[in-house]
Amino acid sequence: MRTSCSPALNVASTVPHLHSDGPLAAVVMAPPSPVPSPALLSLDELKRVAAHRAVEQVESGMVLGLGTGSTAAHALDRIGDLLRCGALRDIVGIPTSEWAAARAAAAGIPLSDLNAHPVIDLSIDGADEVDPALNLVKGRGGSLLREKMVEGASRRFIVIVDESKLVPRIGASGLAVPVEVIPFGWALTLRCLRSLFDGTPGFNLKLRTATINAKASAFEEKESQAEPFVTDNKNYIVDMFFENGIHGDLNDISDKILRITGVVEHGMFLGLASSVIVARKDGVVVMDKAVKSNGI
Amino acid sequence: MRTSCSPALNVASTVPHLHSDGPLAAVVMAPPSPVPSPALLSLDELKRVAAHRAVEQVESGMVLGLGTGSTAAHALDRIGDLLRCGALRDIVGIPTSEWAAARAAAAGIPLSDLNAHPVIDLSIDGADEVDPALNLVKGRGGSLLREKMVEGASRRFIVIVDESKLVPRIGASGLAVPVEVIPFGWALTLRCLRSLFDGTPGFNLKLRTATINAKASAFEEKESQAEPFVTDNKNYIVDMFFENGIHGDLNDISDKILRITGVVEHGMFLGLASSVIVARKDGVVVMDKAVKSNGI
Repeated sequence: MRTSCSPALNVASTVPHLHSDGPLAAVVMAPPSPVPSPALLSLDELKRVAAHRAVEQVESGMVLGLGTGSTAAHALDRIGDLLRCGALRDIVGIPTSEWAAARAAAAGIPLSDLNAHPVIDLSIDGADEVDPALNLVKGRGGSLLREKMVEGASRRFIVIVDESKLVPRIGASGLAVPVEVIPFGWALTLRCLRSLFDGTPGFNLKLRTATINAKASAFEEKESQAEPFVTDNKNYIVDMFFENGIHGDLNDISDKILRITGVVEHGMFLGLASSVIVARKDGVVVMDKAVKSNGI
Repeated sequence: MRTSCSPALNVASTVPHLHSDGPLAAVVMAPPSPVPSPALLSLDELKRVAAHRAVEQVESGMVLGLGTGSTAAHALDRIGDLLRCGALRDIVGIPTSEWAAARAAAAGIPLSDLNAHPVIDLSIDGADEVDPALNLVKGRGGSLLREKMVEGASRRFIVIVDESKLVPRIGASGLAVPVEVIPFGWALTLRCLRSLFDGTPGFNLKLRTATINAKASAFEEKESQAEPFVTDNKNYIVDMFFENGIHGDLNDISDKILRITGVVEHGMFLGLASSVIVARKDGVVVMDKAVKSNGI
């Protein structure tokens, strides 16, 4: 095993780990570095704990899928640190967004793309929701399509979250389940999505907007206005909200969404995660795809 | 019925029409104008015959889906003529491409978009292939997504073709069945499409390219190079070829294609056409959705 040049951030595991023989068995070993008191950890520090645990799975020579968002940022920074001190070498990163590309470049990670590397050894990324079967919601940051392409092309996909992201079912957090749509005819696409969930109690949806400052001259009052949020692929996002989460066969619902002309992709990642590392106040939990949930 | 200011182009119907009680019953009445000898008609004239027949279904006040391509062009020109002479009024056109928008504007057809008019009374468009169940292949011109959105939002969709477009099964012409894909990771998307049809005899696929002239200066030799063809939605096209057409359940194959991350839409239009008007050397045939094919 490589030597870390700076210690990984860990917390003591005070709950039993959910597996011991899966591919992530190495993650659940005794922490190799000083252990902060869990009670003192902020949400961001918990994210960092999970990210550092995931990065322990990175080996020299790997092609890595690089995630997007505040949790993935900790993984990118950690990989950069390990490259700088020589503990890792020959890493090729495939970013899941323009944001990830910029952050990874700043961290010193060499970058390439999916066309040059259609098979990825390991992806590490955060998620907005994780259900007991390791289905995810992703894309509240707007990068769902590239994330799904990169992570779908990965031999292993490790998800890193804090415990606030665990839900009994997809959509149950009450936050958005995003759908990327073509700008042309977006209002019609939104109508079709609404029809699909017609009669679902507490269902709502809306075009995601980004508030921008309108150009102002000396003769005009400065004002802000809402414009559609635009993804890296120059598409729009429709955010769907489910007051009580999504009930029914998720694969069937996925097909129905994808059949709508104008839909590019949705933010439900079904069956893609190999493992989920959950940083909790009372320790780290690893949920593995091969192991049935026990009620988290 | 309105009076045409110039006669519609028709040929005598020398074969029985395939329906008499469908919504297109009016199409199969006796031709109201001088009848050219079918033997003298070129392929382009046959296309015009079909287009003029379809335009007979247009009524004042309609919201119309405006098709793309050489056959649809005849319909656009005819609608423009009828507007100019006052035989039609209060038409709103929803173009299926930038090309259709420009052509319709030149013909004097007032234009709007799907967001303002999410329900369309009638769409008229050509097709690249028509099978006996009125399933279509469209999009060899590159506008499949917008066409599918507009025509899918239409109460009636009349397809106009010459007889060379009739095939026993989708893909059987040997020409392309196109798939619109996101530029990001297109090579991976192409690999996934190839995997889907792995083992299908005579299957092949490739990224569509558009030959462009590279910039040339006084010091450089002028040369041409192939760049990816770019759709109106700024996406790429992967063209799939089936030596013997597509066998199997088309709806199931459609779902499998749409599940591939990176696929936006494909060019199979399944169950969307209300009627197909076929201009043949020996007359016009109308195929109606409600009527089973009798072997054409």
